Amino acid sequence: MDILAAARRLEAEGRSIIHMEVGQPGAPAPRPVLEAARAALAGGRLGYTEAAGILPLRRRIARHYHDTYGVDVPENRVMVTTGSSAGFNLAFLAAFDPGDRIVLTAPGYPAYRNIIRALGLVPVEIEVGPETRWSLTPELIEAAAANGPVKGVLVASPANPTGTMMTPEALAELVRYCDEAGIWFLSDEIYHGLVYEGVQATALSTSQNALIINSFSKYYCMTGWRIGWMVLPEALMRPAERIAQSLYISPPELSQIAAAAAFDARVELEAVKAGYAANRALLLERLPAIGFDRLLPVDGAFYIYADVRGICEDSLAFTRAMLTEAGVAATPGADFDPYNGARFLRFSFAGSHSDMAEALDRLTAWRQKRG
Amino acid sequence: MDILAAARRLEAEGRSIIHMEVGQPGAPAPRPVLEAARAALAGGRLGYTEAAGILPLRRRIARHYHDTYGVDVPENRVMVTTGSSAGFNLAFLAAFDPGDRIVLTAPGYPAYRNIIRALGLVPVEIEVGPETRWSLTPELIEAAAANGPVKGVLVASPANPTGTMMTPEALAELVRYCDEAGIWFLSDEIYHGLVYEGVQATALSTSQNALIINSFSKYYCMTGWRIGWMVLPEALMRPAERIAQSLYISPPELSQIAAAAAFDARVELEAVKAGYAANRALLLERLPAIGFDRLLPVDGAFYIYADVRGICEDSLAFTRAMLTEAGVAATPGADFDPYNGARFLRFSFAGSHSDMAEALDRLTAWRQKRG
Repeated sequence: MDILAAARRLEAEGRSIIHMEVGQPGAPAPRPVLEAARAALAGGRLGYTEAAGILPLRRRIARHYHDTYGVDVPENRVMVTTGSSAGFNLAFLAAFDPGDRIVLTAPGYPAYRNIIRALGLVPVEIEVGPETRWSLTPELIEAAAANGPVKGVLVASPANPTGTMMTPEALAELVRYCDEAGIWFLSDEIYHGLVYEGVQATALSTSQNALIINSFSKYYCMTGWRIGWMVLPEALMRPAERIAQSLYISPPELSQIAAAAAFDARVELEAVKAGYAANRALLLERLPAIGFDRLLPVDGAFYIYADVRGICEDSLAFTRAMLTEAGVAATPGADFDPYNGARFLRFSFAGSHSDMAEALDRLTAWRQKRG
Repeated sequence: MDILAAARRLEAEGRSIIHMEVGQPGAPAPRPVLEAARAALAGGRLGYTEAAGILPLRRRIARHYHDTYGVDVPENRVMVTTGSSAGFNLAFLAAFDPGDRIVLTAPGYPAYRNIIRALGLVPVEIEVGPETRWSLTPELIEAAAANGPVKGVLVASPANPTGTMMTPEALAELVRYCDEAGIWFLSDEIYHGLVYEGVQATALSTSQNALIINSFSKYYCMTGWRIGWMVLPEALMRPAERIAQSLYISPPELSQIAAAAAFDARVELEAVKAGYAANRALLLERLPAIGFDRLLPVDGAFYIYADVRGICEDSLAFTRAMLTEAGVAATPGADFDPYNGARFLRFSFAGSHSDMAEALDRLTAWRQKRG
């Protein structure tokens, strides 16, 4: 946030800044989405919908699980949400009681712990590293349970900020462990679709007790439309619907209608993804020569998480200097990880290919000048 | 909710139902809003915005306070929200700590107490009646404070379900009392603009410490767009922004862009309001002859709250019979008031004039048949 504000200030002063700190696609929503939205605007009143979303969209999402993962999900366990933000909020409120401890990874998406705390729950952040491919394991959960009962486990795969993805086997093992231990497993799958290495798996393939949180913001390029979904265990649907009715009334109707068309935009969306893949390849090729030679595996999403040991002492100061001196904005690890964040920074490659190339040129010159 | 579901079932069976249970305008968003939305769709990516909303909209809302109430509000105290639902959620989280007691009226909008409870706060519902024109007074707050400290007071004026509005003097007195007692005053002003009798006043005219919650859903006919706003005391802006960043990221960008145009649709929106006024006049003229002769003052909003003593024992059973036998849906008072709800029902007159006339004909015939 600090870096974002600083980047805006510099731009206001006329400086050119390459934005590698942003967590959203540069592309607009695909054409079928825009067409559906236009038709809905012409079609009359946009009103409240059922709290769980309009049936055609819930049905289309259910079909997506069949088509993409070979998992059958009944439409009445699909809940449309006002972005994945609402999904998390509703999932936490429906599944947990005040004081419940929820395990998550550090590094991780900072809003998780903020939402968890705002709702009176307790985030238990566990340091993860290369030993476990930057994710949680049954052993890590067990260790956390020694300090108090664990009621929930939240995993993102592919993850933000690391870009790493669990193998289907590791994910299945963790989901099974939680299931047997009576722990709610929350699976943040919002970067599904954006996978470059390995095989993506949904937690639903292992257990119908998993809470799946997803969104149209990333793969589907619908960030500003605030539209996402959940697949919930049957027992949580009514509680979640009741809470949604009070907290949200319903997701935006225009976005719901438009989102149903997103699944028919595969060709256009795959072209966007190919752009990310090209960015990723370019960065992986050129970053090491500039000194960023300890990169995490970039399995998915649009992030490269770089260990900057040997380049700098503190990634926050380094990121600030990189912004001011080289005109390249990245996110310091401290935003994601209270323990080891000072040793890392995150590059986003959601921007244009020419921006990536320009950023690499600037970084090369900057690093050479700096010695 | 029960009645809504029953009405839908009957319609699915082919029955004609007049919907006087709904709380949303029948009209679509006004033309300038639709045009702005169309332009935004054509204009490129819709992305995340600042958590507090885009500056042009915040600025336009600030100007609205100057133009409408003669109150000057700096744009940096205006926060755009994902409907008033998000406004309430953020206001409660920013202003209160778990366990804090918040006073509200019974009857009242049921989502208030649900949100308050979901957030670990304590709703204190005070019975109000004709003695206080269906609203709170300093004396009622003082009485509630005898059972434990009151941290917040929430007032809607015009109110749902009663349609009553506080006089500017009564509102100012209550706001002043709260200010002096160190109690946060939350003013739900979402039915402002829809006033038929009396003068509407904003709590901001009395105190800059009041939390104002408003929405584009009612007067501006933008229900399904999920867009509203708050005006907050300076001290609460940063906390609310931080929470909004985690809980919502930002309101839908398309709705934000479109909402800024809503203020330029005065003529069209006043025509919609004139339609409500005609509905109101027709109902006030004909309902008494059908037996609904104890109606609350219909100052604003689009609701008539009827005391059905003398017509029935229990408004829930009565509303069900009215739906099934007469084909007219209304909302039983129990949805709004845990104490005296069985004695009341709410008619909404947000529908078309011909629907209102048809409903009155049906109710006349039904009541005659019933004797």
